[in-house]
Amino acid sequence: MQQPLLMHINGTVFLQGETLVLIDRRYLPGEVRKVSCSNYEEVARAIEEMVVQGAGDIAITAGYGLYLAARDAENNLQGSTEKARNFLLSAQQRLVGTRPTGYHLKALLKKMFDKINWEQSEWSEQLLKSIDEAIEKQQRRSELTADWAEKILNDGDAILTHCFPGAALLYMLFWAQERGKKVEVIATETRPYLQGARLTAWSVSELGIPVTLISDNMAAYCMNCGMISKVFTAADRIAVDGTVANKVGTFQLALAADYHRLPFYVLGYGGPDARCATGEDIPIEFRDPEEVTFFRGVRITGEKVRGFYPAFDLTPPELITGIITDRGIFAPSEIDHYWSK
Amino acid sequence: MQQPLLMHINGTVFLQGETLVLIDRRYLPGEVRKVSCSNYEEVARAIEEMVVQGAGDIAITAGYGLYLAARDAENNLQGSTEKARNFLLSAQQRLVGTRPTGYHLKALLKKMFDKINWEQSEWSEQLLKSIDEAIEKQQRRSELTADWAEKILNDGDAILTHCFPGAALLYMLFWAQERGKKVEVIATETRPYLQGARLTAWSVSELGIPVTLISDNMAAYCMNCGMISKVFTAADRIAVDGTVANKVGTFQLALAADYHRLPFYVLGYGGPDARCATGEDIPIEFRDPEEVTFFRGVRITGEKVRGFYPAFDLTPPELITGIITDRGIFAPSEIDHYWSK
Repeated sequence: MQQPLLMHINGTVFLQGETLVLIDRRYLPGEVRKVSCSNYEEVARAIEEMVVQGAGDIAITAGYGLYLAARDAENNLQGSTEKARNFLLSAQQRLVGTRPTGYHLKALLKKMFDKINWEQSEWSEQLLKSIDEAIEKQQRRSELTADWAEKILNDGDAILTHCFPGAALLYMLFWAQERGKKVEVIATETRPYLQGARLTAWSVSELGIPVTLISDNMAAYCMNCGMISKVFTAADRIAVDGTVANKVGTFQLALAADYHRLPFYVLGYGGPDARCATGEDIPIEFRDPEEVTFFRGVRITGEKVRGFYPAFDLTPPELITGIITDRGIFAPSEIDHYWSK
Repeated sequence: MQQPLLMHINGTVFLQGETLVLIDRRYLPGEVRKVSCSNYEEVARAIEEMVVQGAGDIAITAGYGLYLAARDAENNLQGSTEKARNFLLSAQQRLVGTRPTGYHLKALLKKMFDKINWEQSEWSEQLLKSIDEAIEKQQRRSELTADWAEKILNDGDAILTHCFPGAALLYMLFWAQERGKKVEVIATETRPYLQGARLTAWSVSELGIPVTLISDNMAAYCMNCGMISKVFTAADRIAVDGTVANKVGTFQLALAADYHRLPFYVLGYGGPDARCATGEDIPIEFRDPEEVTFFRGVRITGEKVRGFYPAFDLTPPELITGIITDRGIFAPSEIDHYWSK
């Protein structure tokens, strides 16, 4: 198989010499446009502007931002470990502040920072090692999650999905197909950024799997027509009570699935966030309202209309059939069992 | 008050000499682009391409198409009433076939055709009279419906709406404001044609009423946050059992409203269609899939991805709080009482 570009983070986020290159996901699949970042501030802005997306990939991209900050510190602040440490701390804070909802960003950057041995001078090399480990871990988690998810699929399944649920969705579909199960995908376009149209539908079609694109408002109709047998979304963060924060619109799909008694699964990769007891502990990101009132530079509404853009929503545990992780499938109410597996 | 352009059909659908002029709603509010139709086929294509929208306005526009056909018949087929009749019959069929879901189109054109007195030669004049009557009737229905709807509104209400529910919504809001009730509107953008962004949000803002635009996938989130107190949509057709066909996405909103115990009202103007016992009798229009896979000429997904575009969906009566008509407000299960009022 020719792997879809988005099946592994290395395809769209990579170092070229001392520069971090990001394939701008906002222009895929029509255009492969590169964004080059030579310092952590440029990485932070690229993350804010959604050049990269997906909780895991955002975290790793930010990790590279911290690496670039360490390079700067090595070049300019080698004389004072204290100054270098403070510089990296502010870089870490800047990068963590870019996107509040996803679990992985803060967790990975904290871990990377805390692991630095300041006695050894090659801080950037240490960080690069941490990034490589994180990429490997994410890859392993994606594959393990996909392996559990694939077991649930039946021959003939039609899967509704929302936004871009990451590599686990693609591996799940790929393996299902390899194991002789015929599956198809219905992808919501996922306004306003159209990740479903641009990333998911495209990637699934690259796997040779039939995929149909719908607007976000057509999902309940499709369920009612019997066009859908299972729903799979990702999670940007999972609370210990089983509440799932994911791309806005997930909650509506879960309500529609519940009404139609369709199983609703969450690809939960590395499990819940121990610091979030309930959904109320998950910060929801509000983005620039102009991202709703404009489309590709064109205003789509009257001048006096304001926009509102919550980037994520919370799906309560009672609407979720199962959370699929690298350690197995859990009922949302038992997601805390993840840690004892 | 300077009335919003879309508060009366005369603002966007009118005769200029022998030409029917349509203000192309697909480009509002950014651009006032005129489409001129000099024969019924051009009118039919304009309706198919959604230059005009809304069940009532589509019907009247098609009525003008029949008028243009009668003009042609008078000029070219005056010698044979039989030939003229057949020509108008085929024009009527062509126009009725443009959009299958809305109730008003077929009903109005049948009525107009059946009313023609073939003994009198000025067929087009007769049709013009029928159109004027239909416009007046639609206007009266909008105002009566709005009057009933306004009674339901409370000071402080925040109203979620979908697509463009027509003049009744605007009159309802205008009168509520005049009567000292502070109301605000949250409008879904309504993909793929963005009628909510372009027509509803703009028109409401022209009334001086605060209006917020959201993507279609954000409605349940807004309900959950307590941002919405009532939902109002229109209906393209209402079955006798209280099932409502309306712009795709309405069903999803009704499910979300039901979960949050929010009242869900339908602006039902002239009531149900006696020929449709249940929702199954309402034909759903499927539009060109490319209207989903392209946005303003740009493909938004991979080449191998197909689109799917049901233009309407069916909301079952149990999810609807009330259907508001020109004759009063009915429980969906009692919408057949409309005829005895």
